[in-house]
Amino acid sequence: MKDACASNKQRWAILLEYDGTNYVGWQRQKTDIAVQELLEKAASKLVKGACVHSVASGRTDSGVHAQAMPVHLDFPKEFSLCERNIIDGINFHLKPHPIVVLNASPAPFGWNARFSSLWRRYEYHILTRRARPALSKHRVWHFPFALDAQAMQDAAKLLIGQHDFTTFRASACQALSPIKTLDQLDIIRENDLIRIITKSRSFLHHQVRNMVGTLTLIGRGQWSNQDLIHALEAKNRSAGGQTAPPEGLFFMEAGYKEKLFH
Amino acid sequence: MKDACASNKQRWAILLEYDGTNYVGWQRQKTDIAVQELLEKAASKLVKGACVHSVASGRTDSGVHAQAMPVHLDFPKEFSLCERNIIDGINFHLKPHPIVVLNASPAPFGWNARFSSLWRRYEYHILTRRARPALSKHRVWHFPFALDAQAMQDAAKLLIGQHDFTTFRASACQALSPIKTLDQLDIIRENDLIRIITKSRSFLHHQVRNMVGTLTLIGRGQWSNQDLIHALEAKNRSAGGQTAPPEGLFFMEAGYKEKLFH
Repeated sequence: MKDACASNKQRWAILLEYDGTNYVGWQRQKTDIAVQELLEKAASKLVKGACVHSVASGRTDSGVHAQAMPVHLDFPKEFSLCERNIIDGINFHLKPHPIVVLNASPAPFGWNARFSSLWRRYEYHILTRRARPALSKHRVWHFPFALDAQAMQDAAKLLIGQHDFTTFRASACQALSPIKTLDQLDIIRENDLIRIITKSRSFLHHQVRNMVGTLTLIGRGQWSNQDLIHALEAKNRSAGGQTAPPEGLFFMEAGYKEKLFH
Repeated sequence: MKDACASNKQRWAILLEYDGTNYVGWQRQKTDIAVQELLEKAASKLVKGACVHSVASGRTDSGVHAQAMPVHLDFPKEFSLCERNIIDGINFHLKPHPIVVLNASPAPFGWNARFSSLWRRYEYHILTRRARPALSKHRVWHFPFALDAQAMQDAAKLLIGQHDFTTFRASACQALSPIKTLDQLDIIRENDLIRIITKSRSFLHHQVRNMVGTLTLIGRGQWSNQDLIHALEAKNRSAGGQTAPPEGLFFMEAGYKEKLFH
């Protein structure tokens, strides 16, 4: 399954930024428009319409954004491509979609954007004010209640480390195991904005959004830390809080053993 | 001219946030849609369609944004209004436009959003990278060249203080005098983003955008500090650099002797 066609392909690493508002998510689907489909179509125009296959470090749901998502692109070997070709060429063909290639480099030998990833970092932004967002529309969860960021930070510490995260796992999740190790879950207040920064080797489907939705129960004073512990120990999605909406979530970056860009 | 109808009006102070992308600017015009027109229409719905007149601390051009712009609204005296009425009511009627009232309070006696203003602060954002913006589309000037932020900061000091700013003044400017006192002009780099923060009692028409466009000549190494001094001393718009585009400009806040919101 891993890279069957690698021998007759040249693999490139790229970094992708996109506004996910109007797409069904990263992954190609039969009906609606996905970021992957637009990227592959644009890339194939650089190689006379030949098929270009892409794999991202992580998947994003409909409405979720990416700031610097690593992706690999497999181009046919017979084409000669340079970094400038790939960046400017794909960006030209991606117009007018809010999707851009920030960087490109030939991939290190054996490197895979998904399987080589050592960690992923996400951010979630909550706008805690009564008035809906004007400047940050589609970029934040509009939450018209006060949140105690310090209480959320204290509770977040309980989720750090290795746990069975079934309570924060979408029913559609395809991961083999619900056991994950959470390396970071920090809550930072900047005026009306609450930024939630989280890092892990990998996340379950909807894990970040389900953790965020649950932390807002702590932030409003509706849950104690003990309630959070009980929810985690229940290993049952219905014991957790709501799924935070997609528009506040950003895939920020992923880490690899290899240095990808110079 | 100042507040002839104040006696039969109740004046409110509000703070306004808006995305200026799709409007002709703040000020009401005969043809295209202005922020002022949408705000006044929404406010008049709170008082059975009676006329509501508004004045903003400053004017913004088409495409320019506001983060917390003070505005005064004159409502007919016969209506009883509370803060919650005004904030939620106007925001309801402003939907789906990206314009929102952040705060509202009865105006202090004699207060005028424009004439009582002691200073205005603007920010200008430049994205200095090759790839066009995806997440910050319509919120930055996309500048596909490197800029030396430290050189720009050094040059900016030459514009601080009282000067004849004719070189940075739009031909359409209606100010009585081109002499202004610039209190702040700071350049801050955050990765690919350059933030320019500037404060003055008041600005000439296009002054911020013309200063920014000129500073990019310094940032690219095309102009020396001496060139900037010569341009300022020329007191001639054609001696200055280009007008930076509107989408990177934000009206941030204005200061008053009075405390407006509690």
